[in-house]
Amino acid sequence: MAEVSNKRILFKEYITGAPKETDMVPTVGTIKLKVPEGSKGVLVKNLYLSCDPYMRNLMNQPIEGQESYILPFFPGHVVTGFGVSKVVDSDHPNFKEGDYVWGITGWEEYSLVPSTDALFKIPFTDVPLSYYTGVLGMPGLTAYAGFHEICTPKKGEYVYVSAASGAVGQLVGQYAKLMGCYVVGSAGSKEKVDLLKNKFGFDEAFNYKEETDLVVTLKRYFPEGIDIYFENVGGPMLDAALLNMRVKGRIAACGLISQYNLEKQDGVHNLFMLITKRVKMVGFLSMDHYGSYPEFVEKTRSYIKEGKIVYVEDFVEGLENAPKALVGLFSGRNVGKQVVVVARE
Amino acid sequence: MAEVSNKRILFKEYITGAPKETDMVPTVGTIKLKVPEGSKGVLVKNLYLSCDPYMRNLMNQPIEGQESYILPFFPGHVVTGFGVSKVVDSDHPNFKEGDYVWGITGWEEYSLVPSTDALFKIPFTDVPLSYYTGVLGMPGLTAYAGFHEICTPKKGEYVYVSAASGAVGQLVGQYAKLMGCYVVGSAGSKEKVDLLKNKFGFDEAFNYKEETDLVVTLKRYFPEGIDIYFENVGGPMLDAALLNMRVKGRIAACGLISQYNLEKQDGVHNLFMLITKRVKMVGFLSMDHYGSYPEFVEKTRSYIKEGKIVYVEDFVEGLENAPKALVGLFSGRNVGKQVVVVARE
Repeated sequence: MAEVSNKRILFKEYITGAPKETDMVPTVGTIKLKVPEGSKGVLVKNLYLSCDPYMRNLMNQPIEGQESYILPFFPGHVVTGFGVSKVVDSDHPNFKEGDYVWGITGWEEYSLVPSTDALFKIPFTDVPLSYYTGVLGMPGLTAYAGFHEICTPKKGEYVYVSAASGAVGQLVGQYAKLMGCYVVGSAGSKEKVDLLKNKFGFDEAFNYKEETDLVVTLKRYFPEGIDIYFENVGGPMLDAALLNMRVKGRIAACGLISQYNLEKQDGVHNLFMLITKRVKMVGFLSMDHYGSYPEFVEKTRSYIKEGKIVYVEDFVEGLENAPKALVGLFSGRNVGKQVVVVARE
Repeated sequence: MAEVSNKRILFKEYITGAPKETDMVPTVGTIKLKVPEGSKGVLVKNLYLSCDPYMRNLMNQPIEGQESYILPFFPGHVVTGFGVSKVVDSDHPNFKEGDYVWGITGWEEYSLVPSTDALFKIPFTDVPLSYYTGVLGMPGLTAYAGFHEICTPKKGEYVYVSAASGAVGQLVGQYAKLMGCYVVGSAGSKEKVDLLKNKFGFDEAFNYKEETDLVVTLKRYFPEGIDIYFENVGGPMLDAALLNMRVKGRIAACGLISQYNLEKQDGVHNLFMLITKRVKMVGFLSMDHYGSYPEFVEKTRSYIKEGKIVYVEDFVEGLENAPKALVGLFSGRNVGKQVVVVARE
């Protein structure tokens, strides 16, 4: 089979500080649309690519002993991340031409995926395929498992979600409402706060950029204190939440997006509250919860069909705009889940 | 009945920074050795008083919403804390004259204890009575419940204990050895390090004051990483431990003694490791585990009788020396559990 042209986004080199578009370099290569026989790999056409905060951490020079949970990017190699793809050729018995899949792929038009360990067949196609980069993919599972399994919520509990309009946060808030909790979210613009209150059904929401004292702000929204803090940002927000936790509260540490671009992480000063209030703070990753995927996707797809869960995506068109979209996450430019459209079919 | 003289130690006023002997004032009052009828109280003669790090926190001006788990000291009133006492008179059906008890009492020769909620009859007197301020009292229960219930240890796991020669730490290390774990402890002098290795049976121990880079130190003692960190100190030690945790590690936050005298708590910078390594950090208090007391005291007393658990106490003689003893905890002057002897019988 002849080679075809393959637009690709390469990672330039390890960085410190905020990522820039120019840290990723568009290029054009070629690829054979055929999997080497006996390789057990698959060859996919990429449709939707996911921009996720964790990707910033893969741009750091790895430090021995502090390796991230996912391999770092390799300078000069294609950027990798979650995406939705269509199988073009397969040497693996579980996948065949025409299958839709989601999982780890490359930021390019076509990818040869040598190991299918992180590739999942898309179970339902009666919802938008792009949802498998978000509400029905990794961020969705993160929200579902993080909220239900890590936070062990009870009806009527007080739940606070930071970065609440993001891919994970918007779902945590909705799961919490379905559970009968009282939910407050924070985000970084009036538009996002409106979304939280009017679209996602949060009880209250606030723009953290307009607040001068986050301890006081949280006290205002949670006069009785916080039972569950779903932590997506870290830094001063975590310090403020710690001072507002209730006895036996739980903090699910999902992400610390406010910290990823800092060369020295903000110090967190109020950890003594963990003892005083007997709080549990638990770091987690969706990859430890893949076993819950079937239950999660079944339930969440039903909620979507019944209108009980809504989801907001922020699309950019074209692989060449992917670097800009990823960089925008860290200034909060996206509204909802940031998705890059490479091709629609 | 006539009044008798009663030496007492009063708390002067709320402080910031390190506590000084002069923050506590010796005085002499009088007391009737008789409980008011119908009061349900008991009157006790105090024998041994316990000096514990948490007491420093009761010397802070209380801040609304950040109340400690125990009432603060009241300026001008007697210092309160754990102790071992003998009942002199009782209006409560569960206690009678001559009973030995442990629990919350006053820093004075005789105390009228109006509520017996925090007073426990001493179950075994075939061990030194002073042990009920330590190995068989609150610090012992803290070590037992904190290690077994919060850390959920498994045989062969790597355990690190800071402030390891203190009242709680020495026991955590011994429980961990009994469980078949590999245990390393840190302390602040050569004498304490020797105790850890030669008396308490820790596999390794080090003097943190002689180390220049705690991250490197912990890496040296835990080349495979730490499964369980029993946290008694906080600050830079916590930061170093975070960088050395293993996947699915557990941190039991028992105390943060390095932080109690600071007006502004040290910042902790490495909380992202909680996510990367999926670590659980859990604050706890022994008072939530009183239900485990009978099991704990039964087992631990057997271990003591069999020589499987040893315990080191640091006695000072005389109530008038109690302030100096308490203050000494924060410079690490004590070797082992700090106990004040008021009377031996």
